[in-house]
Amino acid sequence: MSDVFQVKARCGAARRGKLHTAHGEVATPVFMPVGTLATVKGVPQETLEDLGAEIILANTYHLFLRPGTETIRKLGGLHRFMSWERAILTDSGGYQVFSLSDLRKVREEGVEFRSHLDGALHFLSPETATAAQIALGADVVMAFDECTEYPAQHEQARASMEMTARWAERCKRSFEEHRGEVPWRNVSGFKFQVSSEEAQAGNVKRETRNDSQLLFGIIQGGVYADLRRESAERTVKVGFPGYAIGGLSVGEPRTLTREMVEATLPHLPADQPRYLMGVGTPEEIVEYAALGVDMMDCVLPTRAARHGLLYTSEGKLAIKNARFAQDGGPLDPRCSCQVCARYSRAYLRHLYSSNETLAAVLNTMHNLAFYLDTMRQVRQSIELGRLEALLSEVRSHSLNSSARGRDPA
Amino acid sequence: MSDVFQVKARCGAARRGKLHTAHGEVATPVFMPVGTLATVKGVPQETLEDLGAEIILANTYHLFLRPGTETIRKLGGLHRFMSWERAILTDSGGYQVFSLSDLRKVREEGVEFRSHLDGALHFLSPETATAAQIALGADVVMAFDECTEYPAQHEQARASMEMTARWAERCKRSFEEHRGEVPWRNVSGFKFQVSSEEAQAGNVKRETRNDSQLLFGIIQGGVYADLRRESAERTVKVGFPGYAIGGLSVGEPRTLTREMVEATLPHLPADQPRYLMGVGTPEEIVEYAALGVDMMDCVLPTRAARHGLLYTSEGKLAIKNARFAQDGGPLDPRCSCQVCARYSRAYLRHLYSSNETLAAVLNTMHNLAFYLDTMRQVRQSIELGRLEALLSEVRSHSLNSSARGRDPA
Repeated sequence: MSDVFQVKARCGAARRGKLHTAHGEVATPVFMPVGTLATVKGVPQETLEDLGAEIILANTYHLFLRPGTETIRKLGGLHRFMSWERAILTDSGGYQVFSLSDLRKVREEGVEFRSHLDGALHFLSPETATAAQIALGADVVMAFDECTEYPAQHEQARASMEMTARWAERCKRSFEEHRGEVPWRNVSGFKFQVSSEEAQAGNVKRETRNDSQLLFGIIQGGVYADLRRESAERTVKVGFPGYAIGGLSVGEPRTLTREMVEATLPHLPADQPRYLMGVGTPEEIVEYAALGVDMMDCVLPTRAARHGLLYTSEGKLAIKNARFAQDGGPLDPRCSCQVCARYSRAYLRHLYSSNETLAAVLNTMHNLAFYLDTMRQVRQSIELGRLEALLSEVRSHSLNSSARGRDPA
Repeated sequence: MSDVFQVKARCGAARRGKLHTAHGEVATPVFMPVGTLATVKGVPQETLEDLGAEIILANTYHLFLRPGTETIRKLGGLHRFMSWERAILTDSGGYQVFSLSDLRKVREEGVEFRSHLDGALHFLSPETATAAQIALGADVVMAFDECTEYPAQHEQARASMEMTARWAERCKRSFEEHRGEVPWRNVSGFKFQVSSEEAQAGNVKRETRNDSQLLFGIIQGGVYADLRRESAERTVKVGFPGYAIGGLSVGEPRTLTREMVEATLPHLPADQPRYLMGVGTPEEIVEYAALGVDMMDCVLPTRAARHGLLYTSEGKLAIKNARFAQDGGPLDPRCSCQVCARYSRAYLRHLYSSNETLAAVLNTMHNLAFYLDTMRQVRQSIELGRLEALLSEVRSHSLNSSARGRDPA
């Protein structure tokens, strides 16, 4: 049994678990809000706490460029820098190097690329990406991988997957060598901050079974089931406390995404956490949890919110729609979030139509509340052995949705 | 003694008072955050409550164009529309018609103008501006005035002031005739919401000595002391429960602003509230309170915040400055606001430099906290008879400020 992850209940393939990090326990299945530049866009950290987020994701590539991982290390690490004392997962930068940067040169050693901000030349490798994430002090560090593009021929996908596998070994070696350098271990007087909510609950110290970072491996292999299987086997052989399925949600049809997840999951250890990167819609996060995925992240709820697309128990709606102009009712009558409790559709429409900053703030708060609440329902349904009922409900709401569609990029 | 306003303490010319509105008491001298389009840009209403704001300002001109005052009336008025159950003051639209709109034609009847948004033709007059503010349901309604431009010849300033005086009579007549039509009087089941803070304090009902709107008159007269005096006398003769000094902070030198305020105040009733429109810096709001001004509003703290200019007990600072990049200390060590309690200068600089929405949110929260706290100190100093000491302190900090200067527009 793993120190890092415990499965508390099962329902079919789905698992209700706990991930133990140096910054507290994370109840799984979990959706991780994306805080690219050490901020979940528009939302103060105190609000994320109120929403019940136990773990967020930050992007190494972006922080590497701004303000610089060394700057954050000197300031005591990412938790202290952004004043977030719960868990943080950082990606390795691999995905952004391949999707955002210009003029990249991929070699066995690593990737040379130009910043999308100012064209400056940078280099990321298994060693430097790991060093960056140790400097940030993330609770969960991701191995540096090559994100195979879609479409890719089998041969190309194999070569890419094999390099990712070789890089995984280098990441692990580098991580083992330097993990003691995590900034929050060395900050004198560092204390876990206790939120007032926790203090009231008498829970003055977050349970911390792990006092060090965790490095997760990443499975690649494009859209080829045989390569996915081989990637899983090779990565598991290297040995990590958790595994991610990467290289999906990069433009392939959704049915293919699901096929690849289904082709990969059986080859991952049953007692370790499984993280599906970059997924998905409210419906999808329930579907993948049902397949046995424990962790997910996606920019969809936060990005859609900034575009006025709001998830509700009755489907997705575009708040700019004229029919909301005189609608004094709450955004989602079944939602108990702060936004639905206080503001009307008419007001949210007015803010969005007027391009007011508060639109992004409130819309993001609601969409995150909706996602986090969906996962709360998933966890509860697994405990009660009723996940099928939740799945049926989610699928029927999804059909009702007037404005479906995947968020671009 | 006025039902609307009570002076509780004096210190020199300064007064510590209470303004009684239909949506609660307002402790004066007060600074009113500006919520142009029914939102103080970037800040949720629950945060404004936490900051202790007892009254905010909204702009009739902007709401008249978007979403329309009739829409807001149908939704139960501005308080319900924006979910703000404390006091609201609306300006009359006069200032914006003169500063923002195109192709305006000013006649005795009113002003025809084109929207700055889409060029559509609109008309505002003493009657329609009053009707708009009754539809909004503001607690304090401002008379429709002509904001005399600067510079203006004496003759031009006189003509403008005289029209404002004639318009004041029409506003009062129209207001008396229609004040019963305020939307929150007619909403069945309408209840004053009680904040959790108030509930804890056992103060479950806000004291409401007035259950109707208040109409304030506005003094004009450009930068001519004789016209200011005459405007005050004529406006007081019409008779209002409060008086504003308008037409200042429109580009004239600050010494002239102060001269005009000093020329006007002695001609306003000592037992009624005095509102200086569009002022000012942290130093100025203390100075004008010391002269006997009870209410002020200004976009400065909120607009400056969005430009990364932050007010602190040691002066103004530009957060983008490179010297803050490694500064793990709080923005203002003497400030007890939520932002200073939690976030570092380095983090705030990072957010601002990265153009993150959270920069505007947190910066605005801090600047408003600083202004509201400054006014809290003013009120306490008046009660203790120590306003001179506060003035000296504020003046010395102002000299230390590295980046002074008036916010443009």
